[in-house]
Amino acid sequence: MALLVVGSLAFDSIKTPRGQVDRILGGSATYFSLAASYFTEVRVVAVVGDDFTAEHEAVLKRRGVATDGIEHARGKTFFWSGEYGENVNEAKTHATELNVFQDFHPQIPKKYLDTEFLFLANIDPVLQAGVRRQMSHTRLVGGDTMNYWIKGKPHELAETLKLIDVLLINDTETKMLAGDSSLPRAANKVLAHGPRGLVVKHGEYGATIFFGEGTFGIGTHPFRAPALPIEEVRDPTGAGDSFAGGFMGYIASQGELNREVLKRAMFYGGVMGSFAVECFGPERLTNLTRDEIEARFQIFRELTHLDHDA
Amino acid sequence: MALLVVGSLAFDSIKTPRGQVDRILGGSATYFSLAASYFTEVRVVAVVGDDFTAEHEAVLKRRGVATDGIEHARGKTFFWSGEYGENVNEAKTHATELNVFQDFHPQIPKKYLDTEFLFLANIDPVLQAGVRRQMSHTRLVGGDTMNYWIKGKPHELAETLKLIDVLLINDTETKMLAGDSSLPRAANKVLAHGPRGLVVKHGEYGATIFFGEGTFGIGTHPFRAPALPIEEVRDPTGAGDSFAGGFMGYIASQGELNREVLKRAMFYGGVMGSFAVECFGPERLTNLTRDEIEARFQIFRELTHLDHDA
Repeated sequence: MALLVVGSLAFDSIKTPRGQVDRILGGSATYFSLAASYFTEVRVVAVVGDDFTAEHEAVLKRRGVATDGIEHARGKTFFWSGEYGENVNEAKTHATELNVFQDFHPQIPKKYLDTEFLFLANIDPVLQAGVRRQMSHTRLVGGDTMNYWIKGKPHELAETLKLIDVLLINDTETKMLAGDSSLPRAANKVLAHGPRGLVVKHGEYGATIFFGEGTFGIGTHPFRAPALPIEEVRDPTGAGDSFAGGFMGYIASQGELNREVLKRAMFYGGVMGSFAVECFGPERLTNLTRDEIEARFQIFRELTHLDHDA
Repeated sequence: MALLVVGSLAFDSIKTPRGQVDRILGGSATYFSLAASYFTEVRVVAVVGDDFTAEHEAVLKRRGVATDGIEHARGKTFFWSGEYGENVNEAKTHATELNVFQDFHPQIPKKYLDTEFLFLANIDPVLQAGVRRQMSHTRLVGGDTMNYWIKGKPHELAETLKLIDVLLINDTETKMLAGDSSLPRAANKVLAHGPRGLVVKHGEYGATIFFGEGTFGIGTHPFRAPALPIEEVRDPTGAGDSFAGGFMGYIASQGELNREVLKRAMFYGGVMGSFAVECFGPERLTNLTRDEIEARFQIFRELTHLDHDA
């Protein structure tokens, strides 16, 4: 089934210990939709400026991503410039130029209003709620947020959380959102605010999904998926959005929502994140095959499963 | 098969956000041997002072641990006092009094010299090497170390690493030992120094075992075991030693050394660590049943395995 993502299309200038690139295609919606495109039909809603060319759009189109929800505005596309040190979990931002993104008021094209799976990438929670309310036929809504909104718009975010089924954030964000330094306790507090599921991304240690009481009819036991021990992370940009793309894409590709599907979705999320960091920008996500994805899924399985060696 | 541990017996005064205790039984050898005692025959070599009573020794004896390798010296037993904040991964040490431990020169009782499994807990690497050289029939030697020795005795430690089959340390220690901030790269550098296996403990994120080339005839793919998301860690003291006790104890209990055994040992390590933190000091490790251990093993499996719901 189809999956719609609302987020950012951007140009990124990135420096890591392994090299640097200038003004390459980036943004949460780019990583998300490319990663999800290996699993299901994907539709993007975002805004770009005059500098976003047909060639940039073709990167998404070649993966079958529907781009007719992209709004073309006057001005420049969102731009981010940052640098990672040896600790790839922390980016140092040099510049954030919102440009056309500043006045982004996402409108879902009519023909996409009945899309069954929705992902609200990391944008203003007020906009997230606005999108969510436009769409009344969703089967599952995933969402992301960040420290900036947790601190800056806590009340608006609290409202948005009631409209999200599965929230995907990292350890720091979870603890900040809950005001609790114990991750499992913080996770349960976040779940009490609305989401039925909470995926906490641990970076190189993988990710854990926590479930609210009685949701998905599957009990409340958490489930943990690994990340791949990767010797050389070339560029961590977009790893979280790629995780979300794999996670939501796999779920949308399955007819039903149950614990088994969500568990596998966690693995596919980790798989897509592990590919994303192999190259600068989203490049690796443009040229994968489903066989490569399945092979890596097996590596994730072998990394964690007893009695299952290949 | 029997397992011998050389390490510290100590008295600990511990404060955590959940409470505090004064001068309770502790030390690496205590946690290790109690955890291992659920799997195999355990022998302790350590030194204690006049304040270590028959009652303290009985804590080990009741679990069947052989205590006749404990040397009774004049003076006081090793004492540690410390505090944990909300971040249970970091202890603030208030006092370390080595006492009789300062002149500890471990002698393995003759009747124990042919013990097949050996664990060198975190003591001076020179002493670790001395013990290792006394024992010529070992099938597997596990070892621990810490920042203090990595910085203070790097050459001595390098020699000791050549005598250890499986080293168990944490992320920070691994990176420090290798001088590399990428964990998988650091792990491979440590393996190049001697150990055939390296268990990196990630605290609340579990642990990963990395293998050297062609060791145990099982390839070099790492294996990752989870930790339990625990809402309330009452006292993290001894979690790492309890992990090591479960890991080495399970290995010693199995006839053969292969990848499947090592994978399960990683799970049992995590299981014993998860019990250790439930109470102050080693208390929880004194009153477990094998059924409780197996039940928790199943929880670890459900936490990580696809297609395996109970």
